[in-house]
Amino acid sequence: MDHLALTLDVLDYAAVAVFGATGALAAARSRHDIITFGFFAAVTGVGGGTLRDLLIDAPVFWVGQPAYIGVCLAAAAAVWVLGPRRLRGHILVWLDALGLAAYAIVGALKAQSLGLPPFTCVIMGVLTATFGGVIRDVLAHTPSILLRHELYVTPALVAAGAFVAAQMAGAPEMVAGGLGLALGFGLRAGAILWGWSLPGFGGPLPDDSA
Amino acid sequence: MDHLALTLDVLDYAAVAVFGATGALAAARSRHDIITFGFFAAVTGVGGGTLRDLLIDAPVFWVGQPAYIGVCLAAAAAVWVLGPRRLRGHILVWLDALGLAAYAIVGALKAQSLGLPPFTCVIMGVLTATFGGVIRDVLAHTPSILLRHELYVTPALVAAGAFVAAQMAGAPEMVAGGLGLALGFGLRAGAILWGWSLPGFGGPLPDDSA
Amino acid sequence: MDHLALTLDVLDYAAVAVFGATGALAAARSRHDIITFGFFAAVTGVGGGTLRDLLIDAPVFWVGQPAYIGVCLAAAAAVWVLGPRRLRGHILVWLDALGLAAYAIVGALKAQSLGLPPFTCVIMGVLTATFGGVIRDVLAHTPSILLRHELYVTPALVAAGAFVAAQMAGAPEMVAGGLGLALGFGLRAGAILWGWSLPGFGGPLPDDSA
Repeated sequence: MDHLALTLDVLDYAAVAVFGATGALAAARSRHDIITFGFFAAVTGVGGGTLRDLLIDAPVFWVGQPAYIGVCLAAAAAVWVLGPRRLRGHILVWLDALGLAAYAIVGALKAQSLGLPPFTCVIMGVLTATFGGVIRDVLAHTPSILLRHELYVTPALVAAGAFVAAQMAGAPEMVAGGLGLALGFGLRAGAILWGWSLPGFGGPLPDDSA
Repeated sequence: MDHLALTLDVLDYAAVAVFGATGALAAARSRHDIITFGFFAAVTGVGGGTLRDLLIDAPVFWVGQPAYIGVCLAAAAAVWVLGPRRLRGHILVWLDALGLAAYAIVGALKAQSLGLPPFTCVIMGVLTATFGGVIRDVLAHTPSILLRHELYVTPALVAAGAFVAAQMAGAPEMVAGGLGLALGFGLRAGAILWGWSLPGFGGPLPDDSA
Repeated sequence: MDHLALTLDVLDYAAVAVFGATGALAAARSRHDIITFGFFAAVTGVGGGTLRDLLIDAPVFWVGQPAYIGVCLAAAAAVWVLGPRRLRGHILVWLDALGLAAYAIVGALKAQSLGLPPFTCVIMGVLTATFGGVIRDVLAHTPSILLRHELYVTPALVAAGAFVAAQMAGAPEMVAGGLGLALGFGLRAGAILWGWSLPGFGGPLPDDSA
């Protein structure tokens, strides 16, 4: 349990850093200044967890511990110095996949610690993992990550769902967490490497799709 | 009062389902997969009430009762199976109009139950009724429903305003609720059927409308 | 201290009014009706402070005191009657600059009053000052103010940062507030008058800037 707590803490900071870096990357694409880099990194890095904490009525995690924002600013500085080209193709997509799965587990676990229903815990995992990226894309005025036809919400759902379900089936937290992480990360990896996706809606649309 | 509570509960679930369906419809237009259908349905269905609960510092209504999310997922499944064309023209616009008026009343009533000032209660009604749709449109990267030149905020305002004003004038809750529902729904119906609208701003704009 | 409280109260209402007016202006550009004017004015006027209060777990400032919304509606009415052309070039940009600096101080001060860490107080100042405009632009489906290549987040950061740092260095609240206000407003004024900006990111972008 203590071991898990430590692991989760590491995953938590890692996920904040990674999502922060994707926020800075969005700022880089529009050639923004260093302050805007930091702003986007912070909003993206802590956005999902902030929404989770507001919904479950927990103190927002970074408000009392601004080191989380510091991690985001460091990620922004790293993107500025190293340049996104070197970061992106090689590392960032994969770190983002790991962050997505990690955040889904961390989010579900925090909801569990408040005694919320299992279904709510899964939802909190999904929101924590995905909403930082959603906020980043809305602020950058680009179509949200949700709108790309690749698996993104689904790996978060599978990670959080497997974590919660395995515990309900009696698995220890550590095992459930490892399972969720592996399945969520694996699914996202399949989407990145081989373009895995679910079939889109194929039915007829209204004539006036206004 | 108990009777009203039950009626409101029914209206509440109905409004969540209807707005959820409009969220799924937005996902259908971009040919998304079933998971994204569910995500959009949930965010749209509970978004307005979530904002209301955060603002008035009440526990977010669906966090302890995830059946609300279940209703949204069922609505998403219904849109997927039945197809939006069959749903839309015939039923959904009208259900949405009913949901708008119902949510405005439900939102105002919840704020009243916390003893908030009447004006705040009206605002909460308007936010509850309109913000689900706003969040849906922002996530779908389409111009918000607010930006169409038809009555949408106004029916919500009239419904919540009439509900609160009638009570202040001494009407029983049930009568006030019926009045608000009728006026709000009627106004929205006029907008749908006959294009009712308020005059837009006609004055001069700045030369640099940047 | 009482003197400062009064000054801050005046600045607070003034900032709400000014940001509210910029919201109404956004509605004017799309020739919206008077209700939508009011909606945009309210969301823009109180949006930043609302986010701050949610994050620091304070009661949302306008919920118990709807006079703040009344101020926004008055600002909307003023823009409707006077017309944006007369307001904009001459007054509104400058009032907005003052509002930005004032809100940064007010936001930091409120966080301080809850005993939050200095770094968090600075962040709250920045969020309070900038998020009303961000929400306005997102709702209006226009690229956010953050995305323009002019100083906007930076003056808010400098205002809140100088206010907090000066206090830590021993300056009385009133002096620190005046310093923050002057630096933040001055920086924004330089951006308006002489196009001051920070250098944008100049490094290489990824080939697939998807």
